[in-house]
Amino acid sequence: MHIEDRGLQLGDSVYEVFRIANGRIVDQEEHLDRLKRSLGEIEMAMPMGRGALKSVLAEIARRNAMRDGLLYLQITRGALRRDHPIPQPAPKPTLILTVHPVDPAAVARRHAEGVAVITCPDERWGRCDIKTTQLLANLLAKTAARRAGVFEAWLVDRDGFVTEGASTTAWIVDREGRIVTRELSRAILPGVTRRVILEAAAQLPVVERRFTPEEAVSAREAFLSSATGGAVPVIAIDGRKAGDGKPGPMTRRVMELYAQHSQERLA
Amino acid sequence: MHIEDRGLQLGDSVYEVFRIANGRIVDQEEHLDRLKRSLGEIEMAMPMGRGALKSVLAEIARRNAMRDGLLYLQITRGALRRDHPIPQPAPKPTLILTVHPVDPAAVARRHAEGVAVITCPDERWGRCDIKTTQLLANLLAKTAARRAGVFEAWLVDRDGFVTEGASTTAWIVDREGRIVTRELSRAILPGVTRRVILEAAAQLPVVERRFTPEEAVSAREAFLSSATGGAVPVIAIDGRKAGDGKPGPMTRRVMELYAQHSQERLA
Repeated sequence: MHIEDRGLQLGDSVYEVFRIANGRIVDQEEHLDRLKRSLGEIEMAMPMGRGALKSVLAEIARRNAMRDGLLYLQITRGALRRDHPIPQPAPKPTLILTVHPVDPAAVARRHAEGVAVITCPDERWGRCDIKTTQLLANLLAKTAARRAGVFEAWLVDRDGFVTEGASTTAWIVDREGRIVTRELSRAILPGVTRRVILEAAAQLPVVERRFTPEEAVSAREAFLSSATGGAVPVIAIDGRKAGDGKPGPMTRRVMELYAQHSQERLA
Repeated sequence: MHIEDRGLQLGDSVYEVFRIANGRIVDQEEHLDRLKRSLGEIEMAMPMGRGALKSVLAEIARRNAMRDGLLYLQITRGALRRDHPIPQPAPKPTLILTVHPVDPAAVARRHAEGVAVITCPDERWGRCDIKTTQLLANLLAKTAARRAGVFEAWLVDRDGFVTEGASTTAWIVDREGRIVTRELSRAILPGVTRRVILEAAAQLPVVERRFTPEEAVSAREAFLSSATGGAVPVIAIDGRKAGDGKPGPMTRRVMELYAQHSQERLA
C-alpha cells in the first residue's frame, strides 16, 4: 500500500466481508449490491464490471483453496497527495482482497449454546448505512465486549434504542411472538444476512421497529446475525438473562430457514 | 504499508499536522501533547520517547530542505490479521511521515482577503476530541465547500450550534466585542492553534461557548484557525456577509498576536 492511500489517511474506503462455505461465496449478489451502494454514497464507481469482480473473488477463493472462511474485500479511493475533498478526476482505486479460514466448531458452538452481549453507547457517525472502514467506535465497543467476556456489544442510540451490534444485526422475538429488528435508516448498516433472513422468514410474523435493551431482556428471545455466523442466539444482555436464558424456538426456526434458503440459493 | 494495517482496515490510527515555517516546526510541544492524548484515548503509547520523536521530525524537515510546509505524522496500531478488538500485546505501531510545501502566497491572500464558508450538518462520531484518521464526514463536507466555491465548511450539531470547521476551529467576535469559540468537549478537536491563540490573546475578552450560524452572520466578525494558516478572517457564511463582509479589526489583532507569540516561541 502507498502511504498516501486515502483509505489509510482519510478513511476514504468501503469494504465487504463474504462468507465462503464449501468453497462457495454465500449471498454474493447481495454483498455486491451493498458494495455498489456504499461506493455510490461516497461518489465512487465499482472498480470493474460485476462479472469481472465475481471472477476475481472466485479466483482468490480458489487459489487459497478456501472451503470455509471469510473473504475480505476493501476498496479505497486510491493514493494521492493528501487533500480532503473528493479528487476529480477520480484516481485509480485500491483493491485489497484477503481470505482467512473460520473455525466451524466455534460457529457451531455459538449456534448451539448462544452468546452473551453487553450494551454500549453508539458513538458512530451519522452514516452507518455506508459500510466504511471507519470502525474505531466499533472496535472500542468490541474491546469492551471482549473484556467483559462476551461475544458482542449492542450499540444504544441517544434515545435509548438499540441500533445494532458492533459487527452484527440485533434481533428480538417480542412478547407477541413477532420477530423484531430495527428498520433501515442511516443509523444502521443494511445487513446482508438481515436481508436474507427477512426473505427466508417471510412466512413468519416480522416487524421492523426499534427496541430498547430493556425490551430485549424481557423479550421471549433475542438473537444476532452476521455474514460470518448467520443467526446466533443471544442468551444474556448486560449480565441479565435474555428470554429464558437459552436459545429459543423461534431463533432455531430462523436459523433453519436461513440455512435452508442459503443452501437453495447456492445449489 | 501492509494491506492488513489496522489504520487502513479499521480506522485504528491518529495523526497530527505540523506547520513548518522558516525551517522550524511551529507549536511542536502542543502538537505532541495532543498526539499523546489522542493515542492514550485509544490505548496506544507514544511510539518512541518525545526527544527521539522530535529528532525524527526535525530530520524529516531537514532532509527535505523544507522551509515552509506541512509535516504530516500518522501513527497506526500496526499490521495484524483483521480482528476488531484492541490486540494484546500491542503490535509494533506504524509511523508515516510526509512533508509537503505550502504556498505562502495563498496563505497570505487568505489572511488579507478573508475566506467564505458554508454550513453542513455535523455527521461525525461521538469522539471528535480524538484526532483520528476517520475523516470521511470531514472530506464530504470539504467537498461540498469546494463545490460551493468556498474555503471551508462549518459543521452544525443536532442542536443547531456550530461545532467547528471540517479542518479548522470556528470563532466569532460577538456583538459585545468578545472573542467566542466553542468550549472543549467530545464534540470538537482541541485545536492546537486554538490553544495558542487563547494564550496569545489572553489580554483580550474571550469567552468559550457555543454559537449558531445565525449569530455568526450577525456577529461583528468571524474567523477560523488552523495549524496551516493561523487565524484567517471569515467574510461570508452560506452566501451571507459575516460582520461587515471584510476582515475585521479584532481578527487582525488576533492574527498579529498569534504571529508575534509564535515568533517569540520559535526564537
